[in-house]
Amino acid sequence: MTGNVASGGRALLKQPVPVQVGLRLQQITSVDQKAENFGVVATLQMRWHDPALAFSPDRCQCPFKLFRDEAFAKFASESHIPWPEFTIFNQQGKRWVQNRYVVVFPEGNAVYLERFSTTLQAPDFNFRRFPFDQQQFAIRIDNLYPEEFFVFQPLEEFNQVGMKLGEEEWVVVDSTASVTSDLSSSLRPVSRFNFQFKAKRHLTYYIFRIFLPLFVIIAVSWIIFFSKDYAKRVDVAGTNLLIFVAFNFTVSGDLPRLGYLTFMDSIIVSGFLVTSLVLVFNVIIRRLELTGMIKWVQKVDQYMLWIYPLFYLAAVLIVTLAFD
Amino acid sequence: MTGNVASGGRALLKQPVPVQVGLRLQQITSVDQKAENFGVVATLQMRWHDPALAFSPDRCQCPFKLFRDEAFAKFASESHIPWPEFTIFNQQGKRWVQNRYVVVFPEGNAVYLERFSTTLQAPDFNFRRFPFDQQQFAIRIDNLYPEEFFVFQPLEEFNQVGMKLGEEEWVVVDSTASVTSDLSSSLRPVSRFNFQFKAKRHLTYYIFRIFLPLFVIIAVSWIIFFSKDYAKRVDVAGTNLLIFVAFNFTVSGDLPRLGYLTFMDSIIVSGFLVTSLVLVFNVIIRRLELTGMIKWVQKVDQYMLWIYPLFYLAAVLIVTLAFD
Amino acid sequence: MTGNVASGGRALLKQPVPVQVGLRLQQITSVDQKAENFGVVATLQMRWHDPALAFSPDRCQCPFKLFRDEAFAKFASESHIPWPEFTIFNQQGKRWVQNRYVVVFPEGNAVYLERFSTTLQAPDFNFRRFPFDQQQFAIRIDNLYPEEFFVFQPLEEFNQVGMKLGEEEWVVVDSTASVTSDLSSSLRPVSRFNFQFKAKRHLTYYIFRIFLPLFVIIAVSWIIFFSKDYAKRVDVAGTNLLIFVAFNFTVSGDLPRLGYLTFMDSIIVSGFLVTSLVLVFNVIIRRLELTGMIKWVQKVDQYMLWIYPLFYLAAVLIVTLAFD
Amino acid sequence: MTGNVASGGRALLKQPVPVQVGLRLQQITSVDQKAENFGVVATLQMRWHDPALAFSPDRCQCPFKLFRDEAFAKFASESHIPWPEFTIFNQQGKRWVQNRYVVVFPEGNAVYLERFSTTLQAPDFNFRRFPFDQQQFAIRIDNLYPEEFFVFQPLEEFNQVGMKLGEEEWVVVDSTASVTSDLSSSLRPVSRFNFQFKAKRHLTYYIFRIFLPLFVIIAVSWIIFFSKDYAKRVDVAGTNLLIFVAFNFTVSGDLPRLGYLTFMDSIIVSGFLVTSLVLVFNVIIRRLELTGMIKWVQKVDQYMLWIYPLFYLAAVLIVTLAFD
Amino acid sequence: MTGNVASGGRALLKQPVPVQVGLRLQQITSVDQKAENFGVVATLQMRWHDPALAFSPDRCQCPFKLFRDEAFAKFASESHIPWPEFTIFNQQGKRWVQNRYVVVFPEGNAVYLERFSTTLQAPDFNFRRFPFDQQQFAIRIDNLYPEEFFVFQPLEEFNQVGMKLGEEEWVVVDSTASVTSDLSSSLRPVSRFNFQFKAKRHLTYYIFRIFLPLFVIIAVSWIIFFSKDYAKRVDVAGTNLLIFVAFNFTVSGDLPRLGYLTFMDSIIVSGFLVTSLVLVFNVIIRRLELTGMIKWVQKVDQYMLWIYPLFYLAAVLIVTLAFD
Repeated sequence: MTGNVASGGRALLKQPVPVQVGLRLQQITSVDQKAENFGVVATLQMRWHDPALAFSPDRCQCPFKLFRDEAFAKFASESHIPWPEFTIFNQQGKRWVQNRYVVVFPEGNAVYLERFSTTLQAPDFNFRRFPFDQQQFAIRIDNLYPEEFFVFQPLEEFNQVGMKLGEEEWVVVDSTASVTSDLSSSLRPVSRFNFQFKAKRHLTYYIFRIFLPLFVIIAVSWIIFFSKDYAKRVDVAGTNLLIFVAFNFTVSGDLPRLGYLTFMDSIIVSGFLVTSLVLVFNVIIRRLELTGMIKWVQKVDQYMLWIYPLFYLAAVLIVTLAFD
Repeated sequence: MTGNVASGGRALLKQPVPVQVGLRLQQITSVDQKAENFGVVATLQMRWHDPALAFSPDRCQCPFKLFRDEAFAKFASESHIPWPEFTIFNQQGKRWVQNRYVVVFPEGNAVYLERFSTTLQAPDFNFRRFPFDQQQFAIRIDNLYPEEFFVFQPLEEFNQVGMKLGEEEWVVVDSTASVTSDLSSSLRPVSRFNFQFKAKRHLTYYIFRIFLPLFVIIAVSWIIFFSKDYAKRVDVAGTNLLIFVAFNFTVSGDLPRLGYLTFMDSIIVSGFLVTSLVLVFNVIIRRLELTGMIKWVQKVDQYMLWIYPLFYLAAVLIVTLAFD
Repeated sequence: MTGNVASGGRALLKQPVPVQVGLRLQQITSVDQKAENFGVVATLQMRWHDPALAFSPDRCQCPFKLFRDEAFAKFASESHIPWPEFTIFNQQGKRWVQNRYVVVFPEGNAVYLERFSTTLQAPDFNFRRFPFDQQQFAIRIDNLYPEEFFVFQPLEEFNQVGMKLGEEEWVVVDSTASVTSDLSSSLRPVSRFNFQFKAKRHLTYYIFRIFLPLFVIIAVSWIIFFSKDYAKRVDVAGTNLLIFVAFNFTVSGDLPRLGYLTFMDSIIVSGFLVTSLVLVFNVIIRRLELTGMIKWVQKVDQYMLWIYPLFYLAAVLIVTLAFD
Repeated sequence: MTGNVASGGRALLKQPVPVQVGLRLQQITSVDQKAENFGVVATLQMRWHDPALAFSPDRCQCPFKLFRDEAFAKFASESHIPWPEFTIFNQQGKRWVQNRYVVVFPEGNAVYLERFSTTLQAPDFNFRRFPFDQQQFAIRIDNLYPEEFFVFQPLEEFNQVGMKLGEEEWVVVDSTASVTSDLSSSLRPVSRFNFQFKAKRHLTYYIFRIFLPLFVIIAVSWIIFFSKDYAKRVDVAGTNLLIFVAFNFTVSGDLPRLGYLTFMDSIIVSGFLVTSLVLVFNVIIRRLELTGMIKWVQKVDQYMLWIYPLFYLAAVLIVTLAFD
Repeated sequence: MTGNVASGGRALLKQPVPVQVGLRLQQITSVDQKAENFGVVATLQMRWHDPALAFSPDRCQCPFKLFRDEAFAKFASESHIPWPEFTIFNQQGKRWVQNRYVVVFPEGNAVYLERFSTTLQAPDFNFRRFPFDQQQFAIRIDNLYPEEFFVFQPLEEFNQVGMKLGEEEWVVVDSTASVTSDLSSSLRPVSRFNFQFKAKRHLTYYIFRIFLPLFVIIAVSWIIFFSKDYAKRVDVAGTNLLIFVAFNFTVSGDLPRLGYLTFMDSIIVSGFLVTSLVLVFNVIIRRLELTGMIKWVQKVDQYMLWIYPLFYLAAVLIVTLAFD
C-alpha cells in the first residue's frame, strides 16, 4: 500500500480502526535449524467493527452472515470496503488454509477466523551457547494497510500455546503477544502483531551422545598414560585425533555453517587441539626414549600424567567462561 | 466460532443436532517418528438431519440432490444453513481430497462423504520402552460450531481399520472411536470425534540388527578374556568402545532428540560404560603385569573372567527393571 | 454412497450400466520399497452409454460435445445424471491431472479420458526372497456408485504397459486387467477395476555389490587359515565380524523394518554367526598354542581348514532351502 | 481421443491443420539419474490458422484478442472449436505454468504461448560407458487430436537451447527438433513434437575423486611390494580390498540399480578381483616364507613385482575394449 | 509476444509506457549450491500510468479501485487493456503468492503489488575460489510485451535488501537494481528488470572443519618424521592418504560435479599427491634400511625432515597463486 492509497483512504476513514488479533499455536510440526525455519499449525482470529458492514437481519432472514474462504474478500472488494488484510511477514512458501471464515453481525462487528499450516522463518536463531541455547520463535503478522487505516491490538483471551505441540526436542518456556509498528514490507508504517515464544532444548541427547562418549574417551586415554608403553600412547592419541575430527563433522551437520563457533564447537575444537599437543608430546617422549634418555623421560612423564587432565580441564573452563 | 455467533445461532436452533461420524482408515502411508506424525488415506462419513435441507423431489425431478466438492458449502452458505463443518485438529499441512460429496434426501437427511489423504500429528508418542513400545495414533475431528449447534456421535458400522494398510513396520493392535468435548481450538466447547488406534513394532529388525550384533560382540570379547594377552584385551575393549559409540549414533537417528533415555539407549549406554570399566581394568592389569606383579594379576584375572559377563548382565537387568 | 442413495437411484435406473475401463501405463516414475508405494503416469479411459446424455447435434451445431476438466462433473451434477465417478483406491496424496476430457456423442455414448500422474500404494510387497523376489503392483479403481448403478468391464484394446517406462531397477514381467466386487470403501459392493503387473529385479547390483564382495572376503579369510599365524587369524575374523555388521546395516536401509528376515538378511546373519564361531574357535586355538599344546592344535586345525568353508556352505544351503 | 471423435470431426475439418510448434529451453533445474528424469523451465509456442477463430476487430474495438490461462480453452470448448491441445508425453507430476496466453488475430491466426516448469522422464539413459557416457534428453509433446485434425511442424526460429541453463554437471552438445507420428497415448496416430538434446558429463569430478585416488592407491601398494615384508603386504592388500568395497558402494549410489555394469563398475570390480588375487598370492608367499622356502619365494616375487601392475593394466584394457 | 501482436499493438500505443519496478528482498529461504538455485520471499511493486484505466470516482463511490489476485488481469483482458505482465525469467517451479493487488486511481495511475515466495535459478555461480568465493544472485523480471509497449525503470525508493534475511551461511555484501533489454524468452527485445546482490561465505566452518584438521594432521605427521621408526612413518602416511580421500569426498558433496577444480579441491588434491610421494619415499627409505644402507638413509632423511613441510607449503603456494 502506498501513499496515494492512503491519502485516498484518509478521506474515507477519520481514524484508525482497532483490530483485535489473537493466535492460538496448536502444533509445531518441525524445527529446521539449518534452514532456520519452523512449521506450525495455528488458528488466527481478528475482530473489528466497521459500520459499512452493518446489515438488516430481517432482509436476509439470518442472525449473522457467514463468508467462507475467499467470499468475504470478494464481497469487500466489490463493495469497496477496506478490511484488515494481512501478510505473515516471516512466512515461507505456501500457507495451507484448512478453514477460513468471516462472520459479520448486523451491527457491523466482524470476526475473521483462519486455521492454517505453514513454515515460518526464524531469523533470530543464535547458536553461540548451543546446545545450552534458548531460541526465540515468532509469528509476525503485518497489516497491508498503513496505520491510519487499521491498528492491531492483542486479543489476550485467544492467545495461547497448546498443550500438545508434538515437539519433542524443544521445551517452550515462555510466550508473549505484542503489537509494533513496522516498515519492512511497505513505504509507510503498518501495524505488526508479534506472537513470540522462547524454547530451549532437551539435553539428554547431547549429554549421552556427545559429552559422555567424549568424556569417557578422554578419561580412558588418560588411564593409558599410566602405562609406560609410549608407542601405544602415540597410537591412542592418533586415534583420538581422528575421533575428534569425526565428532566435529557429526556435530556440524546439525546447524547451518555459522560465522562463529558454538559452545559445543569450542569444546570439540579445544579437545582436538589438546589431543594434538598430547600426540606431539608423546612422539617426542617416544623419541627421547629411543635415544636412551629414559631417566629424563620418566621424570617429565610423571608431571605429564597430571598435566594431561588439567589441560583438558583448562580448555573446557576457558571455553565455558568465554561463552558465559 | 465465538460466543456472539452462538447466541445468534441459539435463536435459530432449539437443541443440538446429532451428527453421526464414521471413519474408515484405508492406508497408512508413512509413520515419521522424528517428526511425530503419520500419513493416512481415509474415508470420512457424516450423517445428520436438518429440516431446512428438505426439498420436493418433484420440482427438481430427482430422488436426491448430489453436491460435489465445494458445491454444498456454497449452497449452505448462501441459504444461511449451518452444517457440521469440521477441522481435523491434528492435521498438518494440506489435506488432499480425492472425492467429496454431500447427498441430500427430500426429507432433509444429509450424508457427507470425503476420501482424503493427509499427514496427522501424533503427539502422544512415548518412546521410553523403545523398541518394545506401543504407540497411540489418533485422528481428531473437531466441529467448528459449539456443542449447542451440533454434537458428534460415532457411526459404528462405518468405523473400520482396513486389511491392507501398507504399513510393514507397525502392527495395529486395537482401534476405538469416541466423542469428547474440547476447547483446544475455540473459546467454547465443541464436539470432537476421536478415531484412535494402537500399534506396536515388528521386532525382527531390532533383534537382528542391534541386539544380536551387540550380544555377539560382547560374547566374543569375553572369549578373548580367556587369553592372557593383556595388550590384546586392551585393544579389543578399545574397539568395542568405538563400536558402542557408533551404535549409539545409529540408533539415535531413528527417533527425535528426546528428553529421556529409551530402553535401547539405556542398554547401549550401560554397555558403553561397562566396556569403559573393562578397558580401564585391563589397562591396569596390563600395567601391573609389566611391573612384574604377574602372580597377583592372574589371581585377580580369574575372578574377572566371571565378573565381566555378570557386569553386563547386571547392567541389562537394572535397565530392564527400571523400564518396567 | 449409501443405501439411501441406492434406493433413490434404483427408481431411476433399471439395471446396471456397463462401463468399459481401460488403462495405459506410460511411466513408472518411482518405486519406493520402504514406503511401499510407486509412482505412475497413466491414461485412463472409460466408455459408457446413457440415454440421458443424448442430444441433438443440430441444436448445438456440433458433431459431439467436449467437456474439459470439471465441466462434465458440473454438468452432470446440475442435470442430476449419475456417471461412473471413481476413486483410485490405492492412491496416496494428490493426483496431478494433465488432461481430462469427456466427449459425449449425440446418441448418448460417453468417453472419459484422463492422463494423470500419482503415487500408488503397493501393500502386496513381500520381500522374503529379496533380492530374488517378484512383486505385485496394482492400480485399483473403485466406482463410487454401488453395483446396481454401474459395473466395470475391462476395455481390452486400451489396456497396455508402455515400452519405455523409465524404470531401470525392475523388469515388468506380466500384466493383467480384471474387474472385481469390493466393499473396502463403502457399505455396499462396488465395481473395482484392477490393473495389475508383476515385476522382478535386475540382479547385477546385488551380485556385484553384495554377494561378490562377501564371497571374496570369506574366500580370502579362508586362505589366511592356511597360515599358522593364529593371532592374525583372530584379527581377520574380528574384522570380518565388523564387515558383516556394516553390510547388515547397509542392506537393511533398502527395505522397511520388516517382521521377518529376507533371503539376503539370512545369508548375512548366518555369515555373521559362522564368523563369530570361527573367531571363537581361533581364540581358543591361539590360547592352546600359548599354553604349549601345539601338537594337538595343529591336528585340530587341519580339520578346521575344511570345516570352515563347509560351515558357510551349510549355512547358505539351509537358508536357501528354508526360503524355497 | 478415439475413432468416434475423429469421424465426428472429419465432417468438420477437410484436411489436417498444420500447427507450428517451437520450444525454447531456458533452464535445466535438475538431472536425477537415479529416477531417470530431469527438470526444465521452457517456453512453448504454437501457431496455427483456423477460420473459425476469425473475428471483426471493429466490433470488439481491439486489434487482437488476448486469452489468459484457461480462458481460451473455455472459449473454444463453448464455441465447439477444436484446437491443438496437447499432452507432454514424458511429463511427470505437475506442470507449473508461469504464463499462458492465446493471442487470436482477426484473420483467424492463433498464437499459443506457455512458460512452464516441470519434471520430464528421460527413459533413454544408458549408463554403460559411465562416466564417459553421452545421454539423450527429450521433451515429447503429443497432440490430443489424431493426425486428421492437426499435424505439428517445427517452428525453427523459436527452437533454441538457452545460454545459461544453470546446469554445471552436464554439457549440452547438440539439440534437434522433429515431428513424428505416435500411438503411445491413443488408439490412432497423433502428431508428436520432439525437442531433443544430447549432453555429456564434465569429467573433473570422476578423475579427481575416483580415478586419481584409485590409481594412487594401487600405485602406492605396488611400491610396497618392493619391500620384502610379506606380512605388511598382506595387510596392505587387505586394506585395499576394503577400499574397493567402499568405492564400489560410493559409486553405485549415483545411479539406479542397473541390469548391467557401467565402465566405472567394471574398473572397480576388476580392481577388486585383481586385489583379491594379489592378497591370496601374498598370503601364500608369506606361508612359504614361514616354512623356510625363502629362496623360491624371492624368485617368484621378482616376477610378481612386474606382474602386479600388468594385471591391473590388463584388467583395465579388457574392460575398456569391452565397452568400446 | 510476437511481431504480429506488436504491429497490432503499435496502432494502439504511440510510445512505450514507462513502468517503475521495485523489489524488496525480505527473506532468503535457502541457497542450494548443488542445484544452483536459491529461495526468496520478496515484495514486488510496479507503477505505471494508463489513461485507459482512468475512471470517475463518483460513479463507483470510491477513491480508488482495488483488485485482488487475478481480478485485475481478468478485468484488463476483458477491457482489452495491455498491462505490464511479466515472467520471472529465472524462476523455477511454482511461485507461491501470499498477497497480490492492483490499486487503480481515478487519473489512471496503477500500482501492482505482489508478495511471493519462490525458488530462483542462480546460473552465475562460480566456485573456482571456493570457499573464498563471492557469488552473484539475481532476480530477473522480463516483461511479456516487447519494448514498444512497456519499458521498465528501477523504482529506487522501494528496492531494498532486508535486515533479517534468515541466511546464516552467506553475507550479502552488495545489491543493485538495473534494467536491460533481453531476447531470451521472446523473438523481439523486452525490458528486463534485474535485482542483483553479491554474497560471500562465513569462513568459520571451513577453517575449523577442514583447514584446521588438515593442517594439524599434516603437522603431527611431520612430528612423527622426527622419529626414526620408518615402519611407523609408512603407516602414518598411509592413514593420511585415506584421510585425504575421505576429506575429498566430504568436500565434494557440497558442490555440483563441476568441470573444474575449486581452491579447496586443489588444496586437498595437492595434499593427497604430496602425501603419496611422502609414502613412497618412506617405503623406499624403509627398504634401504632393511638392506643395511642405514648410513645413507639417515643422511637423506635429515633433508627429508625439512623437505616435507616445504613440499606441502609449495603445493599450497602454487595452488593459491593459480587461483588468484
